[in-house]
Amino acid sequence: MSAGQALGRLRKSKPLVHQITNYVVMNETANATLALGALPVMAHAREEVEEMVRLAGALVLNIGTLSPPWVEAMLLAGRAANDAGVPVVLDPVGAGATRYRTDTARQLLDEVRVSVLRGNAGEVATLVGVAAEVRGVESAGAGAGADELARTAARELGLVASVTGAVDHVSDGDKVVAVANGHPLLATVTGTGCISSALTGCFLAVESDVPLDAAVHALVALGVAGEDAADGAPGPGTFHARLYDALAALDPATLDERARIA
Amino acid sequence: MSAGQALGRLRKSKPLVHQITNYVVMNETANATLALGALPVMAHAREEVEEMVRLAGALVLNIGTLSPPWVEAMLLAGRAANDAGVPVVLDPVGAGATRYRTDTARQLLDEVRVSVLRGNAGEVATLVGVAAEVRGVESAGAGAGADELARTAARELGLVASVTGAVDHVSDGDKVVAVANGHPLLATVTGTGCISSALTGCFLAVESDVPLDAAVHALVALGVAGEDAADGAPGPGTFHARLYDALAALDPATLDERARIA
Amino acid sequence: MSAGQALGRLRKSKPLVHQITNYVVMNETANATLALGALPVMAHAREEVEEMVRLAGALVLNIGTLSPPWVEAMLLAGRAANDAGVPVVLDPVGAGATRYRTDTARQLLDEVRVSVLRGNAGEVATLVGVAAEVRGVESAGAGAGADELARTAARELGLVASVTGAVDHVSDGDKVVAVANGHPLLATVTGTGCISSALTGCFLAVESDVPLDAAVHALVALGVAGEDAADGAPGPGTFHARLYDALAALDPATLDERARIA
Repeated sequence: MSAGQALGRLRKSKPLVHQITNYVVMNETANATLALGALPVMAHAREEVEEMVRLAGALVLNIGTLSPPWVEAMLLAGRAANDAGVPVVLDPVGAGATRYRTDTARQLLDEVRVSVLRGNAGEVATLVGVAAEVRGVESAGAGAGADELARTAARELGLVASVTGAVDHVSDGDKVVAVANGHPLLATVTGTGCISSALTGCFLAVESDVPLDAAVHALVALGVAGEDAADGAPGPGTFHARLYDALAALDPATLDERARIA
Repeated sequence: MSAGQALGRLRKSKPLVHQITNYVVMNETANATLALGALPVMAHAREEVEEMVRLAGALVLNIGTLSPPWVEAMLLAGRAANDAGVPVVLDPVGAGATRYRTDTARQLLDEVRVSVLRGNAGEVATLVGVAAEVRGVESAGAGAGADELARTAARELGLVASVTGAVDHVSDGDKVVAVANGHPLLATVTGTGCISSALTGCFLAVESDVPLDAAVHALVALGVAGEDAADGAPGPGTFHARLYDALAALDPATLDERARIA
Repeated sequence: MSAGQALGRLRKSKPLVHQITNYVVMNETANATLALGALPVMAHAREEVEEMVRLAGALVLNIGTLSPPWVEAMLLAGRAANDAGVPVVLDPVGAGATRYRTDTARQLLDEVRVSVLRGNAGEVATLVGVAAEVRGVESAGAGAGADELARTAARELGLVASVTGAVDHVSDGDKVVAVANGHPLLATVTGTGCISSALTGCFLAVESDVPLDAAVHALVALGVAGEDAADGAPGPGTFHARLYDALAALDPATLDERARIA
């Protein structure tokens, strides 16, 4: 299934995507999910996450503003997702910045079967023990070797690694796909990395058997939307508003020809 | 008092509207409250909600991202509001999706005297034991019978039921008012339901003796603003930004003639 | 160092600004920080705040939606910042509205060495025992005497007091600087006060030895950006999106001549 076909299927089936994410970007990832054509649901209480995730087509875990009750909920939801065959995306925001974030990301990877790990180069490198420059929760640049990093992470962790940067690299441990869509304005708005994780969950809900493809399609969709939103945008605020317009306007019929995949 | 007159009074008295709401939409409901002309205050700590609500003209409770400390705060604030004669709006986000949400909404209805229950058809149906299709926290469409649902809910629960959808239905158990203002783009932005609950609190603060009217006026105001914001909007992101422009630009002098009430 | 020079230095060094702030404005203060040219990081868990703040150039504490775990984290982070020589900004949102907010703001001032206190007139007056009208978390207007209030607060509390309103007044207890930049639309969007606190942290990170200057430069930057964003804006929603465009477009070369400082 191509990116365009997957988007068409997503718009038709409108999968519910359960997101346990950070306070900073909840509104943004919910709106991006809606704009793409899926349905977001945010729920984090221990009392309900296992029940909620069983209704969902995918689960997205994001540790951007973590604390113990949230980590506990992520573990509960992740295990319930595994039991129910619901695919899981992990966004290890800030892994490498503090021990708590690194340890929590590792614990989630240990205790939950994750389909796609979506992070920047520093975060992903931290989780496979490769030296990396991490500064707060911001990407320190993909740099050279992001393709090899994606492959190594995928192999060592047994999942699809989606390492985003100026050029994104997605690998299942064997194949590495580079996605060159996008625009520098995406880096000027907080939460666009988190949005890419949410969209990965959306695509995974409709093509869970091919997580490499789902991860690539999400980055193509966000990248193309970013290109459209940037066209004539005077700065990050207007670009941000237009990003949702562009996601909603993505055309399944032309998405594949616009994909810059290598 | 007409919708236009109520809006004029609201802009003059600038009531404080205390909102205990979900993480996803806090910024949005605060900005909608400000744009309409009232003053929002968000406070959820057990240590302060009773004191804060006594300063307010209305209290809005929203269970969109509930957890036990928040539910406890809602109960404390709700009872204090009742004691002080401050009207209460309840938005039972996701009731029917999980047992925890359904039970919490019922507990709030049991222990707090609610003036207006504002929800989508699935949520309201759940709370009166009518079969409903609920999918996460998204409306499953009002469908036929929303007018009867509003009347039934109002009667059984002893409050004003405000059931929103493509056409909204508001009832006090006797009269049913249909509001046909609005635009499909409202459904493409997360939190517009929550915004309608916040605006219901704003109007209730200036016409607490006529909760049916307050609920209708809030839906007219949001609906007309949605129509204005949609005019020429290329998609959900730009529409969202323009929704606050449109709320701020609502004209009390023309609001009544633009209301599509039946 | 002038405002323009400080902005140039900030854009070059991209300081990390750790923010423990309220749920309502997290996305907004993060985006304002990025748009100005610094890097935001939001982290509030007891497990990581001390480690995170040692990586930062400044710490911003904001009690807008406080609760005991957050207050504890603010105290831990504040003391760690003091130990590490990281300057601290305090935004006492809603001090005066409830006892819990007033007491927490006082406790933070007692237990943490704060460089800049950034609040509206009502909040600052409350903290120095001057009678003030406070209504929820909204400013009740600076009124006459804001210059004297800033000086008194600075002297009594031993810090730089940054009292914002239609005209802002910043004092170190001796000198009082009035900043007349800005636009009325800033008051129609929630969180612009919180944004001014975040930007104060950004400037403090590059000129920590002159906190009076840093506080003034932040208000000049936000005020000038507000003037640019308001130019032709039809209302608060569009203005809000354009505020980030304007922050990103601020020109260090012309900032000083646009500053309306007295």
